[in-house]
Amino acid sequence: MPITRTTVGIVGAGPAGLMLSHLLALSGIDSIAIDTRTRTEIEHTHRAGILERDSVRLLVDSGVSDRVLTDGHEHKGIDLRFGGTSHRIDFQGLVGASTWLYPQTDVFIDLANARSRDGGDVRFGVTDTQVVDVTSSAPGIRFTDADGVRQEIRCTHLVGADGSRSICRREVPEEQRKQYFREYPFAWFGILAEAPRSAEELIYTRSDHGFALISQRTDTVQRMYFQCDATEDVDQWSDDRIWDELQRRLAGEDGFRLAEGKILERTVLPFRSFVQEPMRYGNMLLAGDAAHTVPPTGAKGLNLALADVRVLAETLEHAVLKNDAEALDHYTGRALDRVWKAQHFSYWMTTMLHSAAGASDFDVQRQLGELRSVVGSEAGSRYLAEAYTGWPRG
Amino acid sequence: MPITRTTVGIVGAGPAGLMLSHLLALSGIDSIAIDTRTRTEIEHTHRAGILERDSVRLLVDSGVSDRVLTDGHEHKGIDLRFGGTSHRIDFQGLVGASTWLYPQTDVFIDLANARSRDGGDVRFGVTDTQVVDVTSSAPGIRFTDADGVRQEIRCTHLVGADGSRSICRREVPEEQRKQYFREYPFAWFGILAEAPRSAEELIYTRSDHGFALISQRTDTVQRMYFQCDATEDVDQWSDDRIWDELQRRLAGEDGFRLAEGKILERTVLPFRSFVQEPMRYGNMLLAGDAAHTVPPTGAKGLNLALADVRVLAETLEHAVLKNDAEALDHYTGRALDRVWKAQHFSYWMTTMLHSAAGASDFDVQRQLGELRSVVGSEAGSRYLAEAYTGWPRG
Repeated sequence: MPITRTTVGIVGAGPAGLMLSHLLALSGIDSIAIDTRTRTEIEHTHRAGILERDSVRLLVDSGVSDRVLTDGHEHKGIDLRFGGTSHRIDFQGLVGASTWLYPQTDVFIDLANARSRDGGDVRFGVTDTQVVDVTSSAPGIRFTDADGVRQEIRCTHLVGADGSRSICRREVPEEQRKQYFREYPFAWFGILAEAPRSAEELIYTRSDHGFALISQRTDTVQRMYFQCDATEDVDQWSDDRIWDELQRRLAGEDGFRLAEGKILERTVLPFRSFVQEPMRYGNMLLAGDAAHTVPPTGAKGLNLALADVRVLAETLEHAVLKNDAEALDHYTGRALDRVWKAQHFSYWMTTMLHSAAGASDFDVQRQLGELRSVVGSEAGSRYLAEAYTGWPRG
Repeated sequence: MPITRTTVGIVGAGPAGLMLSHLLALSGIDSIAIDTRTRTEIEHTHRAGILERDSVRLLVDSGVSDRVLTDGHEHKGIDLRFGGTSHRIDFQGLVGASTWLYPQTDVFIDLANARSRDGGDVRFGVTDTQVVDVTSSAPGIRFTDADGVRQEIRCTHLVGADGSRSICRREVPEEQRKQYFREYPFAWFGILAEAPRSAEELIYTRSDHGFALISQRTDTVQRMYFQCDATEDVDQWSDDRIWDELQRRLAGEDGFRLAEGKILERTVLPFRSFVQEPMRYGNMLLAGDAAHTVPPTGAKGLNLALADVRVLAETLEHAVLKNDAEALDHYTGRALDRVWKAQHFSYWMTTMLHSAAGASDFDVQRQLGELRSVVGSEAGSRYLAEAYTGWPRG
């Protein structure tokens, strides 16, 4: 079996793995990234679409691409809608920041193109991946490449950026790791619809019938979500039934109506929170969904992965270029500080806007009391805007 | 049975009832307040001790007394303590406001003295109180006075300011009222201790052993609380056991130690949320605990009662002096806006700082993530300070 040597071996070539590979290359550190999915598969996996200010800066300033600035849409705020009225949270006015609507698939395409452009070593469509010897000085990745040839990579540092079903995180023995879980008793029903935009920016809606989120994708295709049961069967939902449900949740005194159209895709998004710590074990480091999952409310998943990678690139620069092995010891703490804030923020946005099964009338009125407190207070609105557009890097 | 006529009949002569009577007198509206407790009993019922900025202003500016400014203690902030470290929320720096430590018994004494001074009609120690004909144009209060004489008051407006066991609120027929409840699965163990101050201001503490609150009363007597079971038996707690429990919850890297001393009083404070609406029924209006109860975290109870009374005095001035009966229709909405914000704030402070039975490790880390978010953000700290020192009057 051919053995290739590199400094950083990266399992997972989604946005987190590719961005890390890109940042390392800028510092002159070589890496190889592998992924079990083909490039085409990843390009067609629709995921999150909201980038924090610093995620956009990272793409642009590190030279990946500035396509986000031309093809993406700057969102200078969001609407919180409740009691049948929309209340704008003006990000620019509150914190001088914006978010960008720019689908994760585009982030991936930009990164994959940048890695190709810069001669990066990325192997898509591999099978039978294994990671070995992660506590040794030469951890290994074994896999069968897209041509069916068995390969082995040996590296100084191995990074698990292999998503929520990570094989890397399983390498940490049970007695040396801690896993934190939270299940939510609902999910999101997500649709892609052929319709004009109903709004220029996102509308997070709390209604007596449950949560709904109005988002966008292009001029002619829109993305929307509504709270549903975790066991919801998408086949039970005709286009008409979906539009009725969304219209009902968005209805209000202002007469707001969604523009309807043909529904192109319907999926149920699972809703859970997960964190594994430590994020470093021996010479293996975890980043993004491999170490933590957030519920989609608040759009923190991709942004948190990019924030991990930013810290991880710095950590590896110290370890590799300055022979400062201690930097590795600080990675978990630095990354988790943001992760737990994001877990809280996602939980907060979720509980403030969703209907909880068995919620009492008291809970419902208190929830409305909180929403009125947040939109009625400059400080409350700013606290939300600050978290949504992204805390300053730690 | 002698019948006395007055414009406003007030059931309950605690701080809410007496403040209303005082404000009405300033507008030239006569009232009579009655209470089943004697003046001495009320003077010896230890309750909340933190006044919002506007509660202090109300006492001083309406001419009740300025003793709060001389005998009370201005608190320019609080400490949020977690992870063994205190984090100051600087009210003055954040919102330019303070709270005042000034026990509810002193508020009562000032009000009772002011009512005596100004010739107010207040009947303490009455028995067998009944309210009648609340939807008529002449609602009545019947009671046996402190001398054993049966009395009847007939008024234009009847106010129920008779606390959490209100007889007035029961006058609203079940089908015309809505009651909201929330029970919390814990309580506070409160002590009065003969000891010097351990801190100049309040310390709200989240620890792995549960919540604790360090407060003060005088130079030599202190007030402290710690989260306990709702069924806790105070007789099972020796002085030593109480101090050990408090020291354990306050322990931290900064070496903070509570000054100990003889424990003078131990009580378990119940923990529940309650709201009844509407707060107006016919010619009866409810104020303070008669209409709502908040858990003690955040010290909103007395302040909310005084806020009700401020709105209610305005409402009655319009109804009585300007013959504007419509004002009465707006009372519930105006009062409840603040009530639900306060319910949310009390719930927020409670859940952010207490240990919930059955909380997962995820919940604990998220709670710490929230506390770090709040103290690490000027906006988050200000949002809390704004609520704690009291929202501007609506």
